[in-house]
Amino acid sequence: MISEAMEDADRVLVDLGNRSYDILIGDRLVDRAGKEIAERFPGARAAIVSDETVASLYLEQLRNSLASAGVDSAAIIMPPGEKTKSFEHLMTVVDEILAARLERRDIVIALGGGVIGDLTGFAAGVVRRGMHFVQIPTTLLAQVDSSVGGKTGINSARGKNLIGVFHQPALVLADTSVLDTLSAREFRAGYAETAKYGLIDQPEFFAWLEGNWKDVFAGGEARRRAIATSCRAKAAVVAADERESGARALLNLGHTFGHALEAAVGYDSSRLVHGEGVAIGMVLAHQFSVRLNLASVDDARRVEAHLADVGLPTRLSDIPGDLPPPDRLLEHIAQDKKVERGRLTFILTKGVGQSFVAKDVPASEVELFLKEKYGQ
Amino acid sequence: MISEAMEDADRVLVDLGNRSYDILIGDRLVDRAGKEIAERFPGARAAIVSDETVASLYLEQLRNSLASAGVDSAAIIMPPGEKTKSFEHLMTVVDEILAARLERRDIVIALGGGVIGDLTGFAAGVVRRGMHFVQIPTTLLAQVDSSVGGKTGINSARGKNLIGVFHQPALVLADTSVLDTLSAREFRAGYAETAKYGLIDQPEFFAWLEGNWKDVFAGGEARRRAIATSCRAKAAVVAADERESGARALLNLGHTFGHALEAAVGYDSSRLVHGEGVAIGMVLAHQFSVRLNLASVDDARRVEAHLADVGLPTRLSDIPGDLPPPDRLLEHIAQDKKVERGRLTFILTKGVGQSFVAKDVPASEVELFLKEKYGQ
Ligand SMILES: NC(=O)c1ccc[n+]([C@@H]2O[C@H](COP(=O)([O-])OP(=O)(O)OC[C@H]3O[C@@H](n4cnc5c(N)ncnc54)[C@H](O)[C@@H]3O)[C@@H](O)[C@H]2O)c1
Ligand SMILES: NC(=O)c1ccc[n+]([C@@H]2O[C@H](COP(=O)([O-])OP(=O)(O)OC[C@H]3O[C@@H](n4cnc5c(N)ncnc54)[C@H](O)[C@@H]3O)[C@@H](O)[C@H]2O)c1
Ligand SMILES: [Zn+2]
Ligand SMILES: [Zn+2]
Repeated sequence: MISEAMEDADRVLVDLGNRSYDILIGDRLVDRAGKEIAERFPGARAAIVSDETVASLYLEQLRNSLASAGVDSAAIIMPPGEKTKSFEHLMTVVDEILAARLERRDIVIALGGGVIGDLTGFAAGVVRRGMHFVQIPTTLLAQVDSSVGGKTGINSARGKNLIGVFHQPALVLADTSVLDTLSAREFRAGYAETAKYGLIDQPEFFAWLEGNWKDVFAGGEARRRAIATSCRAKAAVVAADERESGARALLNLGHTFGHALEAAVGYDSSRLVHGEGVAIGMVLAHQFSVRLNLASVDDARRVEAHLADVGLPTRLSDIPGDLPPPDRLLEHIAQDKKVERGRLTFILTKGVGQSFVAKDVPASEVELFLKEKYGQ
Repeated sequence: MISEAMEDADRVLVDLGNRSYDILIGDRLVDRAGKEIAERFPGARAAIVSDETVASLYLEQLRNSLASAGVDSAAIIMPPGEKTKSFEHLMTVVDEILAARLERRDIVIALGGGVIGDLTGFAAGVVRRGMHFVQIPTTLLAQVDSSVGGKTGINSARGKNLIGVFHQPALVLADTSVLDTLSAREFRAGYAETAKYGLIDQPEFFAWLEGNWKDVFAGGEARRRAIATSCRAKAAVVAADERESGARALLNLGHTFGHALEAAVGYDSSRLVHGEGVAIGMVLAHQFSVRLNLASVDDARRVEAHLADVGLPTRLSDIPGDLPPPDRLLEHIAQDKKVERGRLTFILTKGVGQSFVAKDVPASEVELFLKEKYGQ
């Protein structure tokens, strides 16, 4: 009975009419990928895009799984790291997909973290004006966030994720066991996005995480539950607002500050990875909400305490090395894509699990707040 | 899809639900662009993408028109020619749109032929995952075909238009007077696409063109009628099948052969431009249909005679210089995007105005046919 339960995967449907798709969450799904894919795309061939690190761990396993289901595959391997989300690498992936002579009914598979998922999804979205796309996310961040929802893209020197398309996957396979090889730091970074769903509108999930985070880190049932809860939350938001015109913006909690910090360190992952930026960003969003008399100091402290507990950075001073001055950070925020006509759009909060979209936040308030933070 | 006289412009609606848009067709619309745009996008700023040739003729006129309607604009100028539909130029346009600090409510305007329209539409489709996009087509080909329908893209070394997105414009302004500066050769090339609509399913339009083509070339009312009829035909097909899963494929009449010929001459426009490839391609499609006992020799001759009358190339031997051998042409056809699982999809015809999609054309038949043609 127990082993049967472990073999079974959780299933979350992303409901988008005739573009709906499944997210499967469970152990050893890479081994089942061939079967799941061959069932959905009979006769298709595949191009797998991965990074060197992930490929050395799981590429053979995936290709074997595909081969035993009769799915022929080509592999396209990129260097690991955020810098891979560039025009240059997009060009290479696109060219190699074309070189593999994939046709319109074939599929492109992303095997990796959010970097590989975003880059590959973009490439799949533009080759022949859109190829079928399967996500096999291998980081916690990618499993709970980036692999679901169809946002794809690369970075520009002028800002993160400024270039891309919406291109929904046809299937997401979140294999919880591949997270065992993920570094503790990357796991923590992904955990920030998991906690985000609690902070947006599920206070009971946040409370559950506060009590059970060690089990989530350890693996097994608690991990699967945290990932499935996150996927369900993201799937609901995506189904309600595919193109991020309204409610979906809530998913950006912590991201306006977070993206600015990533830009400020020049996307140097030795100093800051995305989820760490989000962790600091979420704490700042709560503190900024306190400053605007929206949330209580206690709530802001509770958020900071939990994220610090799991080992995430929560303050500007937790980032190694020097940061640019506050007005430079503000510039990064202003160039961020969540800006309309000079007014800043921020996700603010009334407390744990009570986030909302604020469209008219004055830049001057943000600047004062940041200056205060730099002083601490 | 409705059409009505508006001031002195025809208006065709492309009916795509909440992404519906107008095509306006008439004289001196560049001068009215500012007003039409400001009405639809109050407060927006614009980036205009054009090529050197078109910019030297119409950029100032357009910017003045925008400025007098209060629309601030930046200009991004590309070299003219098919080679501009490359990754490199895409990168430049994207970067300059971002450098102009356009926000999500602002607009990107393509002022030029199909090359500028395809490149700019692609850039507009990927900057911030989709910016508003206005087409001001300045060639006959772009007015009757490429500016309508949202297909955008660039070429790959592996084939034409293999990389791109569907991104519908929000407005198309077809200024019939700018065609006065177009070379006779480019006008003829665009005329091939106009004639295509007759050949697809409007035999009476084709007959009208046979009798009135000189007036269409001369300008005025006949020209406007030919363009509006073409736009109406294209708008209907696009509304019925936005993503080219079915009926829209008919628009590819003459294009499978045409694209292969363009590739065969290395996209050297001194030897062959797109519309010329389509003209030869349409004649070949009719002759191939005769060979398959679908159409009559008389129909094929009638098509060839009319296209030759207006001065278009209609035979392989009309292309200056040497062509690669037939099997190389077939390879180009096989790499074309209208291939699924090795079977060739062709638009064939039962006669003038009776085209249809054939999905299982054996490659061997195409090869025999081409060898025969090479022999002539
Ligand atoms: N599209 C979206 O909606 C969305 C949402 C959130 C974040 N993102 C993007 O996601 C990216 C960050 O993703 P990420 O944190 O997964 O980074 P990542 O893809 O760079 O992965 C982090 C590191 O872990 C390694 N790795 C991945 N899986 C592993 C495994 N199972 N075992 C061992 N090592 C493994 C990778 O090689 C890499 O070095 C950012 O670019 C961010 O913009 C996108
Ligand atoms: N997106 C679609 O649905 C679609 C459909 C058909 C064709 N296309 C694409 O369109 C492209 C061909 O377009 P095109 O034939 O317009 O070529 P083009 O854009 O290269 O224009 C042809 C030449 O005419 C010049 N020119 C343009 N307007 C002028 C004017 N008013 N006066 C003087 N010179 C002018 C240009 O500088 C250029 O040298 C091809 O790349 C083809 O793939 C796209
Ligand atoms: Zn994130
Ligand atoms: Zn064409």
